[in-house]
This record gives sequence, C-alpha cells and structure tokens, in this order.
Amino acid sequence: MEQQYPITDRNKAKRMRERAKYDVETVHAMLDSALVCHIAYVVDGQPFCTPTLFWRRDNNVIWHGSAGSRMLQAQSKGIDVCLTVTFLDSLVLTRGAFHHAVNYRSAMLFGRATLIEDPEEKLFESQQLLENFLPGRNELVVPATPLELKQASFLKMPIDQAVAKIRSYPASHETSMHRNQPVWAGEIPIETRVGKPVPCEFLDPRVPRGPDVEQYRDGARLDETLLKIRRAARKDY
Amino acid sequence: MEQQYPITDRNKAKRMRERAKYDVETVHAMLDSALVCHIAYVVDGQPFCTPTLFWRRDNNVIWHGSAGSRMLQAQSKGIDVCLTVTFLDSLVLTRGAFHHAVNYRSAMLFGRATLIEDPEEKLFESQQLLENFLPGRNELVVPATPLELKQASFLKMPIDQAVAKIRSYPASHETSMHRNQPVWAGEIPIETRVGKPVPCEFLDPRVPRGPDVEQYRDGARLDETLLKIRRAARKDY
Repeated sequence: MEQQYPITDRNKAKRMRERAKYDVETVHAMLDSALVCHIAYVVDGQPFCTPTLFWRRDNNVIWHGSAGSRMLQAQSKGIDVCLTVTFLDSLVLTRGAFHHAVNYRSAMLFGRATLIEDPEEKLFESQQLLENFLPGRNELVVPATPLELKQASFLKMPIDQAVAKIRSYPASHETSMHRNQPVWAGEIPIETRVGKPVPCEFLDPRVPRGPDVEQYRDGARLDETLLKIRRAARKDY
Repeated sequence: MEQQYPITDRNKAKRMRERAKYDVETVHAMLDSALVCHIAYVVDGQPFCTPTLFWRRDNNVIWHGSAGSRMLQAQSKGIDVCLTVTFLDSLVLTRGAFHHAVNYRSAMLFGRATLIEDPEEKLFESQQLLENFLPGRNELVVPATPLELKQASFLKMPIDQAVAKIRSYPASHETSMHRNQPVWAGEIPIETRVGKPVPCEFLDPRVPRGPDVEQYRDGARLDETLLKIRRAARKDY
C-alpha cells in the first residue's frame, strides 16, 4: 500500500488541491533531488528563513552548522520548524495576463528538530554530509579532527507531516478569446545544471578526478544527478 | 555615501562575519537577480516556509497569491516575515573532510507585510508582476478582468533590515598536510540557466516570439537575465 503522510490543518493545501501530494515516495524523491533547503523557525516571536545544505535518512532530514550559529542554537531546543525545497522548472507564458504561471516542484516538511548528541551518530552523520553528494569521498580526504567535530552541530528532524506541490502543465483556463490573441505563448524552461569542474590552483596535475567528482557530468541537471547518487546509495529504492 | 541597512541583533551575522554585507546596493542587486524567494511567517506559533514569486520596487518587496491562501490571509494582518533569496554557485571540494563548502549568495530581509488595498496601486502591481520578468508583455496580452483582480491579493513589505551573505572563494583553512593529500580538489560550478522556449500547442505558427520572450536567450543564466531586465526598466541604476 502506498504510504502517505497524515493530512491535517497544518499541511493540507487550502487551494489548488490537484497540485498537492502527500505520499512518502513523492516527498522523499523531491528531498533526494535537492542539495539546499530553506528552513523557517521562530526565535522570540521573530521568524527566520535560513538556506542550508541538508540530506535525508529514512524519514528524517538532517542539517548541520556551527555550534555557535543562531539557527543551530535555537533549533537545538526542539522548536517547530518548517523545511522547504523548491525547484523552478519553467515560466509559463499565456495570452491572458492573469494566467501566467511558473511550473515548479516543492516539498514542505513539518517537524521538530533535535540535536544529535550521541558521538557515534554525530560522527556518522558528519560523514554522511559528504557521502550524500560526493559518494566515496570520505575515504579519499583527510578526516575531520575531534576539534572540528566539536565545533559543528548536527540536527535531525523526523518528518511528521509533509506536502509536495507540483505544477507541470501548460497554460490553463484559456478561453477562445485568449486563443485569438496574437501573442507568443508557451514555456521557457529553467534548469539548474552542473558546470565543468575547475581544479584548485594548488592541485598536483597528476591527481585525476575521482569517481565522486565524475558523478557531476558537465551539463547534467543537478536534481537528476543528486537523485541518482542517493538512489544508488540506498536500499529503500 | 553608500547606503546601509541598520544592523541589529536580528540581522547581524553571528559568525563568518566577513561574508556578510549590509549595503543597500548589494541586497537590491541580489533581489533583482531572483524570481523566486522563500518567506518565513508564523501562524498560531507554527512557522511556515513558502516559496513564491516576488519583485522589488524601491525599498519594498511585493508578492501575490490567491486571496484565499493561508499565506496571504496570515500576512495581511501585518505580521513579521523574513524573506530570503538564495543562489547556489558551486560545490567547493577540498582535501579535508570538514573544509568542504558551497559557494552561494543569499539575501535575508526582515519587515512587516501590508495588504495593498488601494485599487490603483493594486492594478499597477498586478501589471508589474508580469513587467518584472516579461517587460512589455502587458501590452500584448488580454488584460486581467476585475473578477480576476478581485481573486488575487498583493502584499508589500518595506525592507526594514537586510543582510546579504556571499561565499565566493576556493577551499580555505587548508594546511600543508591537506595539500599533500592525493585527492582532486576544486570547484564544481552550479548554474541556473534558461532553456529553449517551447511554443504552446495552440500557438498559430505565424506568431513570432516578442521582445519580452527574446530576453530569455537559450543558455543564458537566469540571474543575469533577470538583473539585466530589471536594470533596464529602472531609473535607480
């Protein structure tokens, strides 16, 4: 049976309900296609919206930062957060001013973050941070020192609720009056892609790009590249 | 004299202070390079993080949505919001596990949104919605009807405070121990680009692409394209 996140007043789409999906598979695939999310949280009544790297393990999302950062300090207290990833896919140009749209995919998650305090789990997640976008790289680089690990905090949030929204169709709601308007209509695709790797100025030219770097093919879509890396690494696909 | 946003406990960078900028020019240029932002706001103590289209006029940011949406209804009450735009520019691969980073640009704004109630201002902003990414298109398309306008709400937020953060350099904090590690290091660029326009299936093939569509050159960077469009339209550059 398809697994679904519970639908409550918090995550239920109030409008455009045909765009909303609550199934775990859709939400997880969107998370696995993203490197950066935005996290909303509240400190003393003031909302903050902070961009950060994150990754997923099972039904958790994990992110990290300096132990001294405002975000990490506030979130360590187990406060409510809302974590969102968004992909802009195209501009939809129509013949009626108000029918213009963008095609996009987004996933909005709700839950409470907890600080990872267990040293083994923290060490594991500190390696996963790299592993989740550069598989195998932990074995190639100088490992984190105990002091470096101490300076970082890792937060884990079980996903209590989630909603994915997808708009992926051409112009809608056009009437014949619109169809006769002599103006170009269609879609302008927007794509986030990988560029050609630029070596560090101190790199010994005899050192080749490893298989971790080779995952990022020049010109490939970032979302597809990340999803492929994560799916290859996991047993849940 | 260079204009700066006031620095208080709310927008002051707590760490990595060398990455933070508070000058109006840097913040506005980042806003003008973006189409989508994420907005954090609070409803009954629960934070939400919602992606939305937005645009800037002078020191205000403006966004819109269905009059019935949760976000618009909540924000119409003049609550605090935090609006963030983020650009991921590259993955920075280093020789030490904990020195990996991403190069990025982000701008975080603080203020209180107000509903635009004046009918003339609302009509003007409804046209600016298109004008800000498809200049001249309002004159080519079927205008919004009074009913369509009634169904939409527009919010305006004067920017009270802001902070821009920029990381744009190679690996840092490497020691000679790192330099001798035989692993590829460097940057993998990430770029959001415009694709080739796809005509609507109902488009009369005799209708050419107008100058609004031609702004989006196949393969151009989206941030640079938007900044160019906005700078051409404004007197404040």
